[in-house]
Amino acid sequence: MRAEPQDFGRVLSSMCTTPHPAAREAAEQFLATNPGDPDTYQAVADLEAQAITQLAEITGLASPHGYVASGGTEANIQAVRAARNLATTAEPNVVVPDSGHFSFQKAAGVLNVELRTAPTTDEYRVDLDAVSALADEDTVLIAGVAGTTEYGRVDPLGELSRIARDVDALFHVDAAWGGFVLPFTDYEWRFDQVPIDTMTIDPHKMGQAAVPAGGFLTSMPDVLDALAIDTPYLESTDQATLTGTRSGAGIASAVAAMEELWRTGYRDQFQRSMQNTEWLADAFADRGFDTVSPTLPLLAIDLPDGLFSRLREEGWRISRTGAGELRIVCMPHVTREQLSAFMADVDALRARPRTNS
Amino acid sequence: MRAEPQDFGRVLSSMCTTPHPAAREAAEQFLATNPGDPDTYQAVADLEAQAITQLAEITGLASPHGYVASGGTEANIQAVRAARNLATTAEPNVVVPDSGHFSFQKAAGVLNVELRTAPTTDEYRVDLDAVSALADEDTVLIAGVAGTTEYGRVDPLGELSRIARDVDALFHVDAAWGGFVLPFTDYEWRFDQVPIDTMTIDPHKMGQAAVPAGGFLTSMPDVLDALAIDTPYLESTDQATLTGTRSGAGIASAVAAMEELWRTGYRDQFQRSMQNTEWLADAFADRGFDTVSPTLPLLAIDLPDGLFSRLREEGWRISRTGAGELRIVCMPHVTREQLSAFMADVDALRARPRTNS
Repeated sequence: MRAEPQDFGRVLSSMCTTPHPAAREAAEQFLATNPGDPDTYQAVADLEAQAITQLAEITGLASPHGYVASGGTEANIQAVRAARNLATTAEPNVVVPDSGHFSFQKAAGVLNVELRTAPTTDEYRVDLDAVSALADEDTVLIAGVAGTTEYGRVDPLGELSRIARDVDALFHVDAAWGGFVLPFTDYEWRFDQVPIDTMTIDPHKMGQAAVPAGGFLTSMPDVLDALAIDTPYLESTDQATLTGTRSGAGIASAVAAMEELWRTGYRDQFQRSMQNTEWLADAFADRGFDTVSPTLPLLAIDLPDGLFSRLREEGWRISRTGAGELRIVCMPHVTREQLSAFMADVDALRARPRTNS
Repeated sequence: MRAEPQDFGRVLSSMCTTPHPAAREAAEQFLATNPGDPDTYQAVADLEAQAITQLAEITGLASPHGYVASGGTEANIQAVRAARNLATTAEPNVVVPDSGHFSFQKAAGVLNVELRTAPTTDEYRVDLDAVSALADEDTVLIAGVAGTTEYGRVDPLGELSRIARDVDALFHVDAAWGGFVLPFTDYEWRFDQVPIDTMTIDPHKMGQAAVPAGGFLTSMPDVLDALAIDTPYLESTDQATLTGTRSGAGIASAVAAMEELWRTGYRDQFQRSMQNTEWLADAFADRGFDTVSPTLPLLAIDLPDGLFSRLREEGWRISRTGAGELRIVCMPHVTREQLSAFMADVDALRARPRTNS
């Protein structure tokens, strides 16, 4: 290839990461498989069942149903699609925190469903009164986020679930990023802790699998039936996924990563990531910057736009929240040395005003 | 991994194949990238632009727009989605040959669009009079297939395009499987031969890229705009894809395969595959079986159900058309030796009646 492969040395914005070596090896072995055709590619179909069993253990799901999706966007679309298909209303709506991932906007547009977004409180968690006010008899799904993309916050899931039950809507939890760190916190987010119908949890984020390996889980067999379409010419009889051909590499790498890292490896990684996040928060606070107190390994910092742009010019892969804060995701590839180098660049750029050229 | 990696020795039904060695190597290099976040993963974003340029050359597209999708299903859904979004009708319908891939059923269900299927003639190509009768002012898209999944046939694309123009609908060509063999035939299927608005063409099928690497192309910049949603917190500003996170491995392998194989390598492969198909058709005809005369490297054979089942029990990965015929896809991994072994099993099973046990 002419281009250099990806260098993660300055990537601080991604929710993906370098795959665990065991995950990489498994992905390479299964590059030529298509789990979208399970009767032809049986080895990877068996691995997918294993991945769902592993994800069910992590999420406390007693009777697991689901599949390995391309990622959180697909899983969120599928949750909305299933809820729409299972409902009888002609004018379905979904209620989602405005901290929800933009894939809910995509889902609503694709699926012709009205999107109602509820504001968050000053704790960056969804406002329950607003959710109650938005939900009605045409609400087919209410979503909560367990680890928001911008601030790493966890919505009050128990209360959201109750509101969903009150209006007879499905309750969906988006734990795409949070699912592999929440087991090591006090949050209640699992199927056996909160009545949850569907969940997004992505092995290719904090789970250290290779891209693409997302997870769509449900406690209701009806959900997969509501998504299934007939598949003539495949020996398998139906297909519930959004895409057709899918990545066997992603599935194999998810299984390998979870075998290797659940539970101790993920716990150790969470602790390292959380310590790095707190170190970074202190480093910014010491320099007089406001930060959003981190509860998961993700930090938002109020940084001047000019400084942000100059850091990007230095090659740092960083991004901003909708409100303009710098956000840094302490993924497994992000080391203390990397963060120290980043802070050194922050200091150097602050000491050296930009010259007009 | 505990499971054995996929063995292609008996896979005769798949439209995927073993990746070219250069494609495999590129995929392995880019396993850790996410082209869904192009401003972070710039190397793979550049490769995606290169892939679209290469696909545009193969398909005769002067001003290329598009992206590397997860596969044909996503690309077909996106074609319907764009047509729906660009139209003003409240009751959109699409007209698709009943030989169209089942992803059109999926698209219609996901997108709340009425699906109208037109029958095929005894040549297994869509009946133009039926298409004309089905199309009306609410038709937003008409599709033609350039290499059908079940019989490998090519619809009369020029005539279909004219019908689409007459009702002011977009014209979509599904060349997911056919796109990398059609350049070596007399069919007119390219953007510079027929007025085409959108096209599906999958590098991970006859293009010998690693899964997942599909292609969605369009001659109209409006199409991608109609699919785009805003992406807060990514430094890129919008996203037109159906999934969010995507496979960098698929993109890198598609570029590597096309660099290596376009045009001579694909031509040689087409000739080998076509010769194998014709050999197989003769072999079945010699034994008194009816076959559907192949025009591309795909053969359908009228085989008794019992024999089909016993061949599957012998480990052959084969599948059936909706009408029940055995279908064999002569992908690059399918060799003459493999087909000889298959015919030897056909002979052995016919000579040995099944015993009840």
